[in-house]
Amino acid sequence: MRKTLREIAQVIEGDVKGDADVVITGISGIKEAASGDITFLANPKYSPLLATTSASAVIVSKEMEIPPAKNFIRVANPSLAFAKVISLMNPDEAGHFKGIHSSALLGKGVKLGKNAAIGAYVVIEDDAEIGDNSVIYPGCFIGRMTKIGSDTLIHPNVSIRERVAVGSRVIIHSGTVIGSDGFGFVEVDGRQHKIPQVGTVEIADDVEIGANVTIDRARFNKTIIGRGTKIDNLVQIAHNVVIGENCLIVAQVGISGSTVIGNNVILAGQAGLVGHITVGDNAIVTAQSGVSKSIPAGAMFSGYPARPFLENQKSHAYVHNLPKMFDLVKELKKRIEELETKLKSKE
Amino acid sequence: MRKTLREIAQVIEGDVKGDADVVITGISGIKEAASGDITFLANPKYSPLLATTSASAVIVSKEMEIPPAKNFIRVANPSLAFAKVISLMNPDEAGHFKGIHSSALLGKGVKLGKNAAIGAYVVIEDDAEIGDNSVIYPGCFIGRMTKIGSDTLIHPNVSIRERVAVGSRVIIHSGTVIGSDGFGFVEVDGRQHKIPQVGTVEIADDVEIGANVTIDRARFNKTIIGRGTKIDNLVQIAHNVVIGENCLIVAQVGISGSTVIGNNVILAGQAGLVGHITVGDNAIVTAQSGVSKSIPAGAMFSGYPARPFLENQKSHAYVHNLPKMFDLVKELKKRIEELETKLKSKE
Amino acid sequence: MRKTLREIAQVIEGDVKGDADVVITGISGIKEAASGDITFLANPKYSPLLATTSASAVIVSKEMEIPPAKNFIRVANPSLAFAKVISLMNPDEAGHFKGIHSSALLGKGVKLGKNAAIGAYVVIEDDAEIGDNSVIYPGCFIGRMTKIGSDTLIHPNVSIRERVAVGSRVIIHSGTVIGSDGFGFVEVDGRQHKIPQVGTVEIADDVEIGANVTIDRARFNKTIIGRGTKIDNLVQIAHNVVIGENCLIVAQVGISGSTVIGNNVILAGQAGLVGHITVGDNAIVTAQSGVSKSIPAGAMFSGYPARPFLENQKSHAYVHNLPKMFDLVKELKKRIEELETKLKSKE
Repeated sequence: MRKTLREIAQVIEGDVKGDADVVITGISGIKEAASGDITFLANPKYSPLLATTSASAVIVSKEMEIPPAKNFIRVANPSLAFAKVISLMNPDEAGHFKGIHSSALLGKGVKLGKNAAIGAYVVIEDDAEIGDNSVIYPGCFIGRMTKIGSDTLIHPNVSIRERVAVGSRVIIHSGTVIGSDGFGFVEVDGRQHKIPQVGTVEIADDVEIGANVTIDRARFNKTIIGRGTKIDNLVQIAHNVVIGENCLIVAQVGISGSTVIGNNVILAGQAGLVGHITVGDNAIVTAQSGVSKSIPAGAMFSGYPARPFLENQKSHAYVHNLPKMFDLVKELKKRIEELETKLKSKE
Repeated sequence: MRKTLREIAQVIEGDVKGDADVVITGISGIKEAASGDITFLANPKYSPLLATTSASAVIVSKEMEIPPAKNFIRVANPSLAFAKVISLMNPDEAGHFKGIHSSALLGKGVKLGKNAAIGAYVVIEDDAEIGDNSVIYPGCFIGRMTKIGSDTLIHPNVSIRERVAVGSRVIIHSGTVIGSDGFGFVEVDGRQHKIPQVGTVEIADDVEIGANVTIDRARFNKTIIGRGTKIDNLVQIAHNVVIGENCLIVAQVGISGSTVIGNNVILAGQAGLVGHITVGDNAIVTAQSGVSKSIPAGAMFSGYPARPFLENQKSHAYVHNLPKMFDLVKELKKRIEELETKLKSKE
Repeated sequence: MRKTLREIAQVIEGDVKGDADVVITGISGIKEAASGDITFLANPKYSPLLATTSASAVIVSKEMEIPPAKNFIRVANPSLAFAKVISLMNPDEAGHFKGIHSSALLGKGVKLGKNAAIGAYVVIEDDAEIGDNSVIYPGCFIGRMTKIGSDTLIHPNVSIRERVAVGSRVIIHSGTVIGSDGFGFVEVDGRQHKIPQVGTVEIADDVEIGANVTIDRARFNKTIIGRGTKIDNLVQIAHNVVIGENCLIVAQVGISGSTVIGNNVILAGQAGLVGHITVGDNAIVTAQSGVSKSIPAGAMFSGYPARPFLENQKSHAYVHNLPKMFDLVKELKKRIEELETKLKSKE
């Protein structure tokens, strides 16, 4: 794919500064970029890279200070503009297969929407529904009565059990399991008895779920993933968890049963949350934190057990200063002994 | 499904207090319950919810104090009784498919028990055995010579490699991998050489294994999961690990090679255990703990590196009090300086 | 399989000490070994086990002190020799299936090398290439234009997306996902927009990847796993990560986007690394560490946030001594008060 800088600027509604006729043949990060590449810079902190990049053009904000000898496109939001350019330069990427493969097995009463594409060796059980334009890649399993919306994309070897609801424009990556039984047992006479997990999972529109994620069905009622929430790889979401809208749940996070997460929450990588707590809207949990109590809206929590970020930082600083502190106490002890000796000599 | 409270009480051998003719149409948690629902309360701590729940009936223990105006069933064990009610109200849940799908591929010498059900696109390699009434969902792979007991349920897209033994009444959730090679290498001249992993995995009766779990085969001998042990999603069990009976291994726990876990052990979420240690019977490891040494029977360990729970708690409390402590030391220093000045002035 | 000790010694080029005619029928660890087994001992620390093992023979180094009444083979590298013996005693283990199963679906332009073996229900999309002698087990998905080298082994139910490059002599265990989209979003007006992930993944020769691992494709350019690197189960490798050669990445490690790992690096279990940092050659990160800054070559880092190992250890020791320290400060306070009283009385 070859485009002039002028053509790209038109698509992203930006203003060219420099040579609008330069031909762009590739896309890259600002550090790795070579001649022919277009790149972008959103964070002013990295503006020195503008002078050193080998890119043929850089997308920048309207305010960014730019060196004279390079080609730029000025836009309101460089990240978003760059995302559009990536799509523009890779028109094939959306080219999924079409049609129903002859080896796809559709149960009784399965309803397929217009242009739904079902890959090889997919099994869709009785009374399931797949919406318009949705694509289900080979090797997926869709359980009985499960409903999938329109324009949803399910990558290979995903397992979705019975009675799950998946919205529209959802993306689910390979190996992910949705609707597995929650981890619920009751101990009677020293043995664990399974509590049937008869609820389900509801995934709202515009959600994206990474690879090898596990989302358990509710014991009863629903495990819920809210609209526009994005879940990274290898995340564990236990039964009856409720996650709000537009959250970012980073890789390897674990959320225990019945915990409720608000909107716009960020849970950073490998964080763990106990069950039956709430995390307020816009809260942030930093990486590897262990959250044992509810977190108020807007707070940033950190550490184990998780505490307000600054408090946790301060605590780390105190621990860091312990060697000096121990030395000081030792010195004070000595000075006290000297004082005691002197006083005694005066008696 | 509609049942009167009287019918339910008969099944769970409980005594109705209130209106035995009330019709129950659903099940729910005590907080979410609506009219028509039955729920339960096991923990006296939450007894105030009895007065506020909208449920049409609540299953409680014989000792629980109950408000006058509601319907109850008194039983010995409310949790267990409720589990029975869930099954009673959802008779379809056990309705797995029957028969051998025409696309299931059975190798030479494969033995299938009476009523074994094998789903579409399942591959069972030579000389494997599947017991009576066991159900293997679509997309599973069962390796050569692997033996699976009776009444075992294997969900879609599970991979079980060769020569593995799985007991009876075992449940394995989707995406789980059993019998993958242990992580064993020997470094020679700066390169890692694979040590063949020629052992196997043995999973005893009544075990449940969550989704996307990995259980490696032993280097030699066996990796063992004991009877009745329950394993949550995304757990890693390395080669030659031996886990006892009735353990609860919560999501995202990792157990390193050759570690031996006793009976009735609880490993809470995201805990990690180094290799070649032992964890005694009835021990508990709290969430996210990093266990670097063996743990005696009955102990509760916590933190990183994991220590006895109370010791770890105390340590956290000391750290928490460091700011006060630092202030105190500063103050003491000042008082010592004053003493020194005074004493000097007296010389 | 039965071999005399003499036969085994010939294969591993070792010297028999004791009865060269003893018949070996099994292999085992030194503690579990029974009569008929051969075992090995590499670490002199465990040499007392030589006197107590029930093994019929032990492979030891040329320098190891050995008790008189047992059978040994002395070799230069006991671990490597033992690995060879394991293969020798298990000649069937390499016995993978042959040929292209009739249910394997090969897209247009797929190229298969000599003796490539493709299992049942494998889907290989257009223009993919599989090298000589490579084996792809049932249920795998190989995306469009993906290239797999020769002598590579892919276990059941692996998903490899489009345009990925996998080298030769690579082993990939079941359930693993390679080439899933990186976790990249840009927030505009309070909603997360997907940034297309149009890069790919490149896996060099002699890499081994465990079960249920996730390796995301790059946003652009490549996510790279270097030659000879070994990755354990349930590891997360984010977009644009670059891992060098001969690294060991232990189970449940998570590496965030664009982080660069050198050669011969060891990341122990459950460690987490933030994005955009570098880890120098030969560095070691201990289990569960949280790495938030770059690590120099050769360093060993530990804790959260990860610091040089000894510094972290010292910090733990200081925290451990806090109770004594608090007592001491309390005592000093008392002594100061006594001094103050005495001085006052003298005024």
